[in-house]
Amino acid sequence: MTTTSDRLPAAGADQAATGPTKPTPRVDVHGLSEQLLGRWPEWRRHARARSADPVFWKDESLSMAEHRERVLEQMRRLATEDEKHQVWLAFPERLGGGDAPGANLAGFEELVVADPSLQIKAGVQWGLFSSAILHLGTPDQQDRLLPGAMDLSVPGAFAMTEIGHGSDVASIGTTATYDPDTEEFVIHTPFRAAWKDYLGNAAAHATAATVFAQLITNGVNHGVHCFYVPVRDPETMEFLPGVSGEDDGLKGGLRGVDNGRLAFDHVRVPRTDLLARYGAVAADGTYSSPIDSPGRRFFTMLGSLVQGRVSLDGAASTASKLGLAIAVRYAAERRQFTSSSPVDETVLLDYATHRRRLFPRIAETYATHFAHDRLLDLFDDVFSGAKDTPENREDLETTAAALKATSTTFVLETLQECRVACGGAGFITSNRITSLHHDMDVYATFEGDNTVLLQLVAKRLVGDYAKELKGATSTPAGLARFVVDQAADAALHRTGLRRAGQAIVDAGDPRRAAGHLRDADTQRELLADRVATIVEDVAMALRPAQKADPATAARIFDENQVQLVEAAKAHADLLRWSAFTDALEQVADPGTRRVLTWLRDVFGLTLIERNLAWYLVNGRLSAQRARTVTSYVDRLLDRLRPHAVDLVDAWGYGPDHLRAVIASGVEAERQEEARAYYARQRADGSAPVSEKSLKKKRG
Amino acid sequence: MTTTSDRLPAAGADQAATGPTKPTPRVDVHGLSEQLLGRWPEWRRHARARSADPVFWKDESLSMAEHRERVLEQMRRLATEDEKHQVWLAFPERLGGGDAPGANLAGFEELVVADPSLQIKAGVQWGLFSSAILHLGTPDQQDRLLPGAMDLSVPGAFAMTEIGHGSDVASIGTTATYDPDTEEFVIHTPFRAAWKDYLGNAAAHATAATVFAQLITNGVNHGVHCFYVPVRDPETMEFLPGVSGEDDGLKGGLRGVDNGRLAFDHVRVPRTDLLARYGAVAADGTYSSPIDSPGRRFFTMLGSLVQGRVSLDGAASTASKLGLAIAVRYAAERRQFTSSSPVDETVLLDYATHRRRLFPRIAETYATHFAHDRLLDLFDDVFSGAKDTPENREDLETTAAALKATSTTFVLETLQECRVACGGAGFITSNRITSLHHDMDVYATFEGDNTVLLQLVAKRLVGDYAKELKGATSTPAGLARFVVDQAADAALHRTGLRRAGQAIVDAGDPRRAAGHLRDADTQRELLADRVATIVEDVAMALRPAQKADPATAARIFDENQVQLVEAAKAHADLLRWSAFTDALEQVADPGTRRVLTWLRDVFGLTLIERNLAWYLVNGRLSAQRARTVTSYVDRLLDRLRPHAVDLVDAWGYGPDHLRAVIASGVEAERQEEARAYYARQRADGSAPVSEKSLKKKRG
Repeated sequence: MTTTSDRLPAAGADQAATGPTKPTPRVDVHGLSEQLLGRWPEWRRHARARSADPVFWKDESLSMAEHRERVLEQMRRLATEDEKHQVWLAFPERLGGGDAPGANLAGFEELVVADPSLQIKAGVQWGLFSSAILHLGTPDQQDRLLPGAMDLSVPGAFAMTEIGHGSDVASIGTTATYDPDTEEFVIHTPFRAAWKDYLGNAAAHATAATVFAQLITNGVNHGVHCFYVPVRDPETMEFLPGVSGEDDGLKGGLRGVDNGRLAFDHVRVPRTDLLARYGAVAADGTYSSPIDSPGRRFFTMLGSLVQGRVSLDGAASTASKLGLAIAVRYAAERRQFTSSSPVDETVLLDYATHRRRLFPRIAETYATHFAHDRLLDLFDDVFSGAKDTPENREDLETTAAALKATSTTFVLETLQECRVACGGAGFITSNRITSLHHDMDVYATFEGDNTVLLQLVAKRLVGDYAKELKGATSTPAGLARFVVDQAADAALHRTGLRRAGQAIVDAGDPRRAAGHLRDADTQRELLADRVATIVEDVAMALRPAQKADPATAARIFDENQVQLVEAAKAHADLLRWSAFTDALEQVADPGTRRVLTWLRDVFGLTLIERNLAWYLVNGRLSAQRARTVTSYVDRLLDRLRPHAVDLVDAWGYGPDHLRAVIASGVEAERQEEARAYYARQRADGSAPVSEKSLKKKRG
Repeated sequence: MTTTSDRLPAAGADQAATGPTKPTPRVDVHGLSEQLLGRWPEWRRHARARSADPVFWKDESLSMAEHRERVLEQMRRLATEDEKHQVWLAFPERLGGGDAPGANLAGFEELVVADPSLQIKAGVQWGLFSSAILHLGTPDQQDRLLPGAMDLSVPGAFAMTEIGHGSDVASIGTTATYDPDTEEFVIHTPFRAAWKDYLGNAAAHATAATVFAQLITNGVNHGVHCFYVPVRDPETMEFLPGVSGEDDGLKGGLRGVDNGRLAFDHVRVPRTDLLARYGAVAADGTYSSPIDSPGRRFFTMLGSLVQGRVSLDGAASTASKLGLAIAVRYAAERRQFTSSSPVDETVLLDYATHRRRLFPRIAETYATHFAHDRLLDLFDDVFSGAKDTPENREDLETTAAALKATSTTFVLETLQECRVACGGAGFITSNRITSLHHDMDVYATFEGDNTVLLQLVAKRLVGDYAKELKGATSTPAGLARFVVDQAADAALHRTGLRRAGQAIVDAGDPRRAAGHLRDADTQRELLADRVATIVEDVAMALRPAQKADPATAARIFDENQVQLVEAAKAHADLLRWSAFTDALEQVADPGTRRVLTWLRDVFGLTLIERNLAWYLVNGRLSAQRARTVTSYVDRLLDRLRPHAVDLVDAWGYGPDHLRAVIASGVEAERQEEARAYYARQRADGSAPVSEKSLKKKRG
């Protein structure tokens, strides 16, 4: 009943509130919902049904210890009771899996709806610990070690991060020194900063761990490799000899995950428990690897674990949807302060400030969703083996870094805005938003700190640029010719940067530059041009660093670091805008497409608005045109007003997913009761006269 | 030891890390610290010592129920064991108080350092419940009701907010109908939306409440008044007949505050328990008030409770300091990724992105601090009676609204940035930041939703403008002349808006317009001009609404609502910038003044940078000059690098206030241990050779 209270009925009763407008299109909520299910709709539906099952819900009343046990119990259900075994989908068919990495993530991401702690603890078990065995182990090792990891008989920790080294994995201090006498590796933590930290499963439940350490044999350090190390006696749950650990204790969220620290004092593991796909040690201590370059080997190993970042991007998108769906449903009912109506106060969504708060975030969430869908495609292409090329792997890593860094920051800002937009009610745990915010907080720094990830993306962009520049004249004129040539080369269209080349030419065309801001091509040009220009500027500025002494090079890099991050953000914006625009073509229903096009315009124009000073300073927009950006956005937000509830409903999350009292229709019911009370008073003449009106009457 | 690890020693050993620079000034940390104690240094010191006492600390391990009891226990200490009775300072001397409202707040705000739950629950008891009796009661009522409220023998709730009405107090539904037969008021909750909600003390500890209700007598509603209503039997703690309630349960933070709901079913209180300072009812039901206008009466009553907003501004400033002090101390020690040094990795503060994250927030926190000091002055002027004029009251309310809305939003963004800047460590509760964030979250919406407050501020600005405009010709030429005349009138300097008038003239002077951005006058002009221009634009845009029908007027208002909020924010920015600039004159030490001037420039220029598009679009800055803003900010941030730790140390919070493991020096100790390990390896030749360097050597 209440879910449709704000939805457009046949005609447009709602229009009265927003003033006279043209007949407005309707969103086909069901059709859009189906489209949003993406490439693996059955797995999404299955996962959504599971997240609506109370047995998987976050129980806010539990203590940390109780919450941890509840989540472990939920994982046991995922591992054993779920006949569909969604969490095994990514594993080999020969071991009961589905060899279906994309489908696996599509379902896995939805666990965040049930309880983010469940998503993360399940992610540790099946996405990190088991994945390390799958991707870094040999087939023999997979056969031997995966079954226990998959069925949760061996809960495992993924022991990569150290206290002293977070995102800089190459510099970890833990050593694994080969002893040819016993054919064992000696795993050792040489100092406190090399303790493994923040490891899910480590504080309580892990009986084994995949431990990353510097592999040393015959006096040579071959860099970071991964070892399978039992850590607790599964019977007593006591640490095994040489292993010690600490509980990370309370955290800002994800209290159902038992994060902790591990340290190793000369712990011996058999030679065969080095996960040996990318590097093996023979009995005599001779090291061999299919990848000759230690640097490339390291990045290949780490790259095989990219799915964590992919899934966090999806989870962040989902959590943004939950927060916005709650805030929009509430804002569609909640009334506050008097209005032009003699009876009712104004609905929150009829305040321009409220639309400004929420609607651009709805638009950005759609962009995040569509970009994530394409990331999942790319991920499945690579990891299913269908299109596993080095280029695609590199693209996947860059795109995952760009999108994860963007969406996990976006979700926090969005949930905070939703919380505040719901007033005091937003602060109450039973309305869910603060709980989601607390749990999502760490997504911005784990699986790669967002600032570090953005720098990786930017370096790739600058590197691509430099590569393409090689051979081109390095004078400004030569450069310009290069960019034009490049744009003319239709084959160069794969990455956003190459597309950007195109845009620079277009922007030079006065006819197009004069085009309207609502024109998709104009938006694309403006967004792409910004990426290309910043990348180009940074690349030029960094050139002297190549031949400079280390201190000077460091200074030059430091001077350009903020711009590097800007370049990566602009790239992520373009990726998301392009994904949104491409998705519009898949929308069959004309009304839906029209509304989604407005929404895409809101996204594109708010991106431009956010960086308006850049466009002005760099002469890309005249002051006069810049002035129209904000007013055009406002007009679009006004136009989207009647569709707000439809747009959040299309995400497909019902009451059992949202689980927020204020999104349940209770607010409208309370207003109805109050309205009836005052109506009765007016009817039976018992309403008091207000002193104010008396005074007016008396004059 | 570790607290000075990053501080400049006699010469400047630290300078080596940041490259060759000119001799840099030093901050006199002790002297600055003394200045920052402000007007009531002894009360600040007393309160800080108390917040460093473990008995007042937040205990993160407690359940909600245990936390609530702990905070109540802490309040009992404040009420009885503290021989200085800081929490009684605002109350009349005849009742044991100090008649010292400013000193009271100066100390009260520091409670947030101990535990924000303690600050808020104490605020409910002494700042709201007792304050309502003090400010809305007659002297007789004060004598009768205050002692129990002050000594906590009567824990009380402040029952203003209703489920259906948050910031719109005038529209509450609770009624207090006078019954002349029994000389009683009948307090009644007519429907669910009129339940009082989010009331501290209501869920568990309150035995009485100050209840706001529509006063109805002889069939006339005289608007919202406040009533003293016993709600629980102090012996059994059961609700009294007719009173019911619910527990708000878990919240996103402040779990030590027992927020709850209250409802009244025809609860009778004696006529004498209407707090009657601004409105009384005689035995026969005749209403009388010293304030004739119901509107003015309402705002006078509410205005007397402004101290809540004032104290939240101070608490937000303090919490920003805690978060930044933790993040800066950690960033001054923490190293990550390789650097130009062959031995050590780069300290986080030596990353440009990290300086960009934290330093402008240090600057803004100083601005917030100095602005708050002036707000406290204004508050004390009014509430001590020293300068209690209607103009000052109005200024106080506007300034409190502007600053509270700004600082309580700023603190959330700052704590989030600090959390992320500390990586995974920032997420662990023992590092404090997430805990502070959770507790501070609701500050943005209670005591007036920030968006609503900003609109109040903007309306005042527009109203002032309109008032001053009266009589001036309404043509553009007449308007321009008015603004110039106004600026020439030296007497018109009281509000920020009037100062803004000054700026518009200055901006017209080409010599000054060409002045450097680091010139304080230029910054002032740019900031003031922005306030004046937006206010003027909005005022002009709203004019047609005055003569329009209600629906059109609502539409016009809606179209300008976002700009109204912008105007208020710009006003708050100017207030804070001016307070910072004025405070520079109080700094005696030249080195300190120089560094603080850089910091003020960072604040001013980041404000301009934030709104750069506005300055460009409105022709206030040329593209060329705009381009220099960011690079000049970056240069200042670089220059401030060696002073970062000093600047956060000057806030005066030591380890017992910060209570964050990562701010304790433990990180530097761990690095020292790791450094020693690698040094030993190099010395005894046991260090493995890296495969990478071997390959280089061979090939």
